[in-house]
Amino acid sequence: MRQPILTLTTDFGLHDHFVATMKGVILGLCPTARLVDITHDIAPFEISEGAFTLMEAWQAFPKKTIHVGVVDPGVGSARRPILVEAGGHYFVGPDNGLFAMIYGPLLDRGEPVRVRHLTNEAYFRQPLSRTFHGRDIFAPVAAHLASGVTPAKFGPRIDDFLKIHNFWPTRTSKRLWTGQVLKIDRFGNLISNFSEAEFGEIKTRPFALNIGTEKIQRLALNYAEVPFGEPVAIIGSSGFVEVCVNQGHAAKQLGCGVGAPIELQIW
Amino acid sequence: MRQPILTLTTDFGLHDHFVATMKGVILGLCPTARLVDITHDIAPFEISEGAFTLMEAWQAFPKKTIHVGVVDPGVGSARRPILVEAGGHYFVGPDNGLFAMIYGPLLDRGEPVRVRHLTNEAYFRQPLSRTFHGRDIFAPVAAHLASGVTPAKFGPRIDDFLKIHNFWPTRTSKRLWTGQVLKIDRFGNLISNFSEAEFGEIKTRPFALNIGTEKIQRLALNYAEVPFGEPVAIIGSSGFVEVCVNQGHAAKQLGCGVGAPIELQIW
Amino acid sequence: MRQPILTLTTDFGLHDHFVATMKGVILGLCPTARLVDITHDIAPFEISEGAFTLMEAWQAFPKKTIHVGVVDPGVGSARRPILVEAGGHYFVGPDNGLFAMIYGPLLDRGEPVRVRHLTNEAYFRQPLSRTFHGRDIFAPVAAHLASGVTPAKFGPRIDDFLKIHNFWPTRTSKRLWTGQVLKIDRFGNLISNFSEAEFGEIKTRPFALNIGTEKIQRLALNYAEVPFGEPVAIIGSSGFVEVCVNQGHAAKQLGCGVGAPIELQIW
Repeated sequence: MRQPILTLTTDFGLHDHFVATMKGVILGLCPTARLVDITHDIAPFEISEGAFTLMEAWQAFPKKTIHVGVVDPGVGSARRPILVEAGGHYFVGPDNGLFAMIYGPLLDRGEPVRVRHLTNEAYFRQPLSRTFHGRDIFAPVAAHLASGVTPAKFGPRIDDFLKIHNFWPTRTSKRLWTGQVLKIDRFGNLISNFSEAEFGEIKTRPFALNIGTEKIQRLALNYAEVPFGEPVAIIGSSGFVEVCVNQGHAAKQLGCGVGAPIELQIW
Repeated sequence: MRQPILTLTTDFGLHDHFVATMKGVILGLCPTARLVDITHDIAPFEISEGAFTLMEAWQAFPKKTIHVGVVDPGVGSARRPILVEAGGHYFVGPDNGLFAMIYGPLLDRGEPVRVRHLTNEAYFRQPLSRTFHGRDIFAPVAAHLASGVTPAKFGPRIDDFLKIHNFWPTRTSKRLWTGQVLKIDRFGNLISNFSEAEFGEIKTRPFALNIGTEKIQRLALNYAEVPFGEPVAIIGSSGFVEVCVNQGHAAKQLGCGVGAPIELQIW
Repeated sequence: MRQPILTLTTDFGLHDHFVATMKGVILGLCPTARLVDITHDIAPFEISEGAFTLMEAWQAFPKKTIHVGVVDPGVGSARRPILVEAGGHYFVGPDNGLFAMIYGPLLDRGEPVRVRHLTNEAYFRQPLSRTFHGRDIFAPVAAHLASGVTPAKFGPRIDDFLKIHNFWPTRTSKRLWTGQVLKIDRFGNLISNFSEAEFGEIKTRPFALNIGTEKIQRLALNYAEVPFGEPVAIIGSSGFVEVCVNQGHAAKQLGCGVGAPIELQIW
């Protein structure tokens, strides 16, 4: 028996019926679906936080996983519902950049990314509401896909889906880059947009990371090796440079939030 | 292989072991059960909030779904544990009105509602505690039901289960009704007890919705079509009139909470 | 088809991608795994809170359940990853006392407890990070175990795993014991470390429980039988004496937190 995996990432929270309603719709259409919550705690309407969280999580799942994402301030307006095939996974949600951190790097590397505009109302829940496309479009489309409906049935391919490239650091001089804090995790660690893939040099060369009033010049291998209370850089488990304080809360200690600029100098 | 769906709605929160314990009991008795959380974030002992959330969610699930509800301030006292068959679904929990918003409208329409008093201790977990019937009565009864035990085995039918009718608006003059805020959702939207089924007229006739110091005369089709910061009425995805502020928090902006009165005038 | 049950208990919260990432890894290796969250809301690094919550939950699950626990302030340091076989269940996590409230009482009763040091990197996720052993060691080992790999394959048995015995009350005179508050639950109940098994006498003999400025001499059978606002002792559903206030918040009312001392006198 196929047990297709579907993940859910939303800004719906767990207080209301929204998430459960989507799960009910999915299980009604695809009774063998395996449902996994990524998070429902994205700040309301914060597309970039949703995009980053999805980017951190998706590759841990097996190929053919279907990821449903609903952070959708434009629900009911002209923004299109889409199905993305990228990296061997599927993504179903609004065309507002929520999946751009996944397909962006793939496009940059010339890997195939196929995006379809979900237009076939035969796969929507009826009556279609104007305010809850998670239940009425994204959940049923994902469930039909999980049940074996081929992507081409859901709608035509499009090429003008939203591509966003300002997630990444910009080079400001030969050995100087400006990035930003993408996210603060539960432990208060400040997760930057400096990836290990692009900035792995800091493991072997002297560097300085300027954030707030701190200048950090040390890269630690784990949280435990640094003294209590001292800020340190670390390459986090998602492959991005993080600023951490051992058993402390870096965001509070440094007074930095999401979007705070970070300057990286490598000698 | 049957994979019966069981949902869970409680005021237990996710901080403690309570919910997981219920799931362990269910999976021990019915290893193929599919468990879906509706929410565990009902305010402690707030039966009406639990009732409303269940009412919003249940119809999204397929027929024969078993809904376990535990918002149970009277646990261990004389209140009866019950099994409700209504609308093609099953509901297991305390007889305290938690399922009344589901069977109430069905009874009003003359549809069949069967309620049983859970008396057969052969289907309870032993030793039976006095403070955790979620684990000791509701979870095992639901699991046995999911495994194929027929409803009649659990106990005798009763007709004096708790019926509550004051969930709905009252008519105060020919074209004037007084309702209330039933719930505030994560986005701060004020969900009223004016249903589209009964008050759908507002889609085509002039109306005024008086709440706090606001008089709302506009019905929008979606959140995005109204200016930032302006309160507007909308027919929400659950079929109830909501007061919303586009990308804002209506409850804070209007200073209204659960139970706040709403006056609806239709011309 | 085997559908092995795996539970997850962490301090990761549900805001980030951590928990979902572990689930993705598990489902990639063991597609039929049944995943149940115990809680992810353990306070960061609070091993004893994690230990207590696991102890409250594990026995509700069927034999052979695999419990993954990650409250791991020493991740990346010398603390060992372990697999514990105890009471017919499996436990996978760090050797830092997180499972000590489960195997401690079993060891005291002379029951078999087998602990292995996870050394076989063939069952780890590669590349192995230094900061996220939940994803790279504990999740894949648990998934391989669920898929049928025998425990001996994961590493050698050890006997010097962390044993902690100060969870329990100490006797301070013939009929006087000093215990403590182990946990405050969502309802504000103060859960003590006086177990029914050891202190069941209070059901039939006069006693006094001194906590904060209160002296409690009444044991109630359920929350509902006591007046609103009066503190009372109750034997909780996990088998420990709790101090409760009917429909109130005992922790706030008594001004007590985790670790607060409780003196029990029995006549």
